[in-house]
Amino acid sequence: MPHATAFARNQWYVAAHAHEVGREVLGRTVLGEPLVLYRAERDGRPVVLYDRCVHRRFPLSAAPSRLDGDRIVCGYHGFTYDTTGTCVQVPGRRRVPRTARVASYPVAERDSLVWVWIGDPARADPDTVPRARHLDSPGWVTVRGMEVIDADHGLLVDNLLDLSHETYLHGGYIGTPEVAGTPITTEVDEAAGVVRVSRHMDDAECPPFYAKSTGVRGRIDRWQDIEYHAPCLYLLHSRVAPTGVVPAPDGGDPRAFHTEITYAITPSDHGRVYDFWAVSRDWAREDAEITEFLRHNNHTVVLQDVDALNLLQRALGCERDGFQELSVGIDAGGLAARRILARLAEEGDSPRGNGS
Amino acid sequence: MPHATAFARNQWYVAAHAHEVGREVLGRTVLGEPLVLYRAERDGRPVVLYDRCVHRRFPLSAAPSRLDGDRIVCGYHGFTYDTTGTCVQVPGRRRVPRTARVASYPVAERDSLVWVWIGDPARADPDTVPRARHLDSPGWVTVRGMEVIDADHGLLVDNLLDLSHETYLHGGYIGTPEVAGTPITTEVDEAAGVVRVSRHMDDAECPPFYAKSTGVRGRIDRWQDIEYHAPCLYLLHSRVAPTGVVPAPDGGDPRAFHTEITYAITPSDHGRVYDFWAVSRDWAREDAEITEFLRHNNHTVVLQDVDALNLLQRALGCERDGFQELSVGIDAGGLAARRILARLAEEGDSPRGNGS
Amino acid sequence: MPHATAFARNQWYVAAHAHEVGREVLGRTVLGEPLVLYRAERDGRPVVLYDRCVHRRFPLSAAPSRLDGDRIVCGYHGFTYDTTGTCVQVPGRRRVPRTARVASYPVAERDSLVWVWIGDPARADPDTVPRARHLDSPGWVTVRGMEVIDADHGLLVDNLLDLSHETYLHGGYIGTPEVAGTPITTEVDEAAGVVRVSRHMDDAECPPFYAKSTGVRGRIDRWQDIEYHAPCLYLLHSRVAPTGVVPAPDGGDPRAFHTEITYAITPSDHGRVYDFWAVSRDWAREDAEITEFLRHNNHTVVLQDVDALNLLQRALGCERDGFQELSVGIDAGGLAARRILARLAEEGDSPRGNGS
Repeated sequence: MPHATAFARNQWYVAAHAHEVGREVLGRTVLGEPLVLYRAERDGRPVVLYDRCVHRRFPLSAAPSRLDGDRIVCGYHGFTYDTTGTCVQVPGRRRVPRTARVASYPVAERDSLVWVWIGDPARADPDTVPRARHLDSPGWVTVRGMEVIDADHGLLVDNLLDLSHETYLHGGYIGTPEVAGTPITTEVDEAAGVVRVSRHMDDAECPPFYAKSTGVRGRIDRWQDIEYHAPCLYLLHSRVAPTGVVPAPDGGDPRAFHTEITYAITPSDHGRVYDFWAVSRDWAREDAEITEFLRHNNHTVVLQDVDALNLLQRALGCERDGFQELSVGIDAGGLAARRILARLAEEGDSPRGNGS
Repeated sequence: MPHATAFARNQWYVAAHAHEVGREVLGRTVLGEPLVLYRAERDGRPVVLYDRCVHRRFPLSAAPSRLDGDRIVCGYHGFTYDTTGTCVQVPGRRRVPRTARVASYPVAERDSLVWVWIGDPARADPDTVPRARHLDSPGWVTVRGMEVIDADHGLLVDNLLDLSHETYLHGGYIGTPEVAGTPITTEVDEAAGVVRVSRHMDDAECPPFYAKSTGVRGRIDRWQDIEYHAPCLYLLHSRVAPTGVVPAPDGGDPRAFHTEITYAITPSDHGRVYDFWAVSRDWAREDAEITEFLRHNNHTVVLQDVDALNLLQRALGCERDGFQELSVGIDAGGLAARRILARLAEEGDSPRGNGS
Repeated sequence: MPHATAFARNQWYVAAHAHEVGREVLGRTVLGEPLVLYRAERDGRPVVLYDRCVHRRFPLSAAPSRLDGDRIVCGYHGFTYDTTGTCVQVPGRRRVPRTARVASYPVAERDSLVWVWIGDPARADPDTVPRARHLDSPGWVTVRGMEVIDADHGLLVDNLLDLSHETYLHGGYIGTPEVAGTPITTEVDEAAGVVRVSRHMDDAECPPFYAKSTGVRGRIDRWQDIEYHAPCLYLLHSRVAPTGVVPAPDGGDPRAFHTEITYAITPSDHGRVYDFWAVSRDWAREDAEITEFLRHNNHTVVLQDVDALNLLQRALGCERDGFQELSVGIDAGGLAARRILARLAEEGDSPRGNGS
């Protein structure tokens, strides 16, 4: 059932944008695990600990819990933890019990995203964090945000893997009739857990999102190339150019507008998902007005998804067991993603499974 | 238990006032079934379809779902349905899968009410829709509305079948001491599923509701004749006249004020009921001030019931199993109604039961 | 588990401050039992009845239910009860059914608190109501209030038995570093169900709560002597004096400031507790400004607890079964209280258990 997608453990997940993690404690829940995040003063690296004091389970991320240098002090009775999660101070005693520690999580900060490993820490390999280099490269300018959706994360995967919904849900922003009308090609790399969905629209209407930002007048060629790295990272390579303009044989493409739309789909808890988003462009990089326009417009588009998925989740919650969906061609990518997510969930729960 | 009255399927239910069904999609849930209603452009008739797209279960009644002529276009991916519920368009494909259809419901528009049949469509007979002709007759002027109550529909049946509550819950509006103080007579036609409760008060106080609207000064004779057609339609024939005035042998009754109070009690879902109400009068028909007075006053009275039943449902939700009620004479009508509702629920669930 | 403390029946509980019980019906729920309270006109004594009409279970504490002299009239159909819970009037009939009565509860008004006995009325002995005489003695001035916390009552017991949390949760009000830093002594009288926790701080910082109200400058000796009479009554004897000042051998202690902080911890329902509080002082009794300062400040402190426990309950509600706590020295009082509460709950459920 799309509204009860299993969690895939032993994977990297985005827990925050890098700029969200600083010198105030930040609470996030990932795959049902309550986490507290902060940035250490000493080395500037993000710290992620289990978000419950060992004593009476008070959240370390909730006021009046606070940082004291690189230590976190529980706001209820003052139990104090270092960056490894070891309790170093207990009120009214000299010696701290040896068992007083909270779990610390493997963390990797990459490309302005803070990734956390949910699962067995011994299996965490920072080299396997999927990359989105445009988010933190000099040649790109990025706007970004995050929304919480009260819906199964599978509904957001469905949503993003099938962009034909742009025509209906996002009409007037990024949708035009051609999106729903143009066939897609789908490629699935089951072993790597990657789904690619491409839609190349020739001689298409330019949606307001791009018409107003790029200044292109008239018809366009519009390419949407999705690359979904299950379970968390979704990249949409968008190319918009006046109709007939093609890239040079050497890859040069100066008359086209390239935009990288990034999503991180992080299951928070059952029926709740974090929708991290970013829009990066390599054109008009100095134009603050375009930056604001894209920030505001993409936020609006994300909120349209948020509203629709909140509603859809409530509707699915009222369905009788055994209700049916009807899938058609546009769903090829989404169905592949569901298969891969199911496999990853199964492997993630096995003692040492990794598909090999 | 009054707060868990079984649903009686294979019955007609009011899903909307006629004026509510137009050229915008309208969502209603009846007996737990999500419905979308609209009025066809072609013939002006109401259409009722199952309110979930076959594709990914998005509600057809929720924005940005919309009408396109007499077709309804899903707001998520554009699946499009005709008035029979047949899917006639799917994005990115020429051919629509044969199984792509949503249920359409038998509908009957009668007396300014839109009735829908919940159950086996083959058993729907529009001639069995119960009538309330005064709602749409030239000799009557009607004010109306609808409120949602978060309570079992049985609580609203109880409420309306025992008007002694007017004295307490609706004091200062329609209640006077005589209502609770005057005995009732109750007649039950089990086969027809009709309960009649009558209370004739002679030489009674005139409640503000009638004193201000009719202009009658002094004591009145006040008749309340209830006719409940289970499960949905409730008619209250009200007669108010100066004390001692009686109808002529030929039925003429020009010095009395006749008011028809209509309720449709439509179970929406477990613990939720639609309370459709209307007040029709054959007197002072041109007087807009009286019309407004009655609309406003009856709305207030309905909201008093809404508040009381919301509260009562919450209270019952906290009761231990096996809690007791104590019934007395005034409950004869309500208890008969419960019996009939239980029988109709049982018959409605049987393959072909109709009591015969 | 601290968030599912069993109810101890056959005990006295505070249902209201005396001033809350007057000539309007007041609804309270104690140990899951819905109660309606009012004060009889005849003798000024509080009456406590079961808060559901025998007829259709409407709450007698909810408008438009109301008092008529010393009788309570149900706001739905007018069933009327006397102070013993006997139904004395039913609409539309002369005779009232013999079984028409609601439970009445043993009540004791003591020390400006209204205590109600939850359990077998035959076992209620008013002489066993625990006392807090300072609440209603001429030598004391008291400020008071009540807050509802959406948390297991055990969490409030934990909170109050371990005042080291003052340093962290109530810093800037009543907490200073010395509270968490000073060891406690704990005494448990298992048979009497009394836990005593004492913390005597010598040469300590004076917290703003006392610095501003007493006018003491410089360091203080600060004594906190807790006396918890399970299940409901908590007394904190507070003594603040300039460092080095000691009581005279005869008990005289004129240079110290004695404050009695009283809490009544009344389980309302599962996951909900009433937090009755009062602060009584024997100093500066005429000073209205100090009265207001203490009222406002203690209310703020109580709200800090309310926020923390609401949050903690939500956090515990998400815990997996079998989660662990880690207890240290400061928890000795709270752990003893939990043991006693568990025993009282067990005895309270047994037919005739009283521990002897």
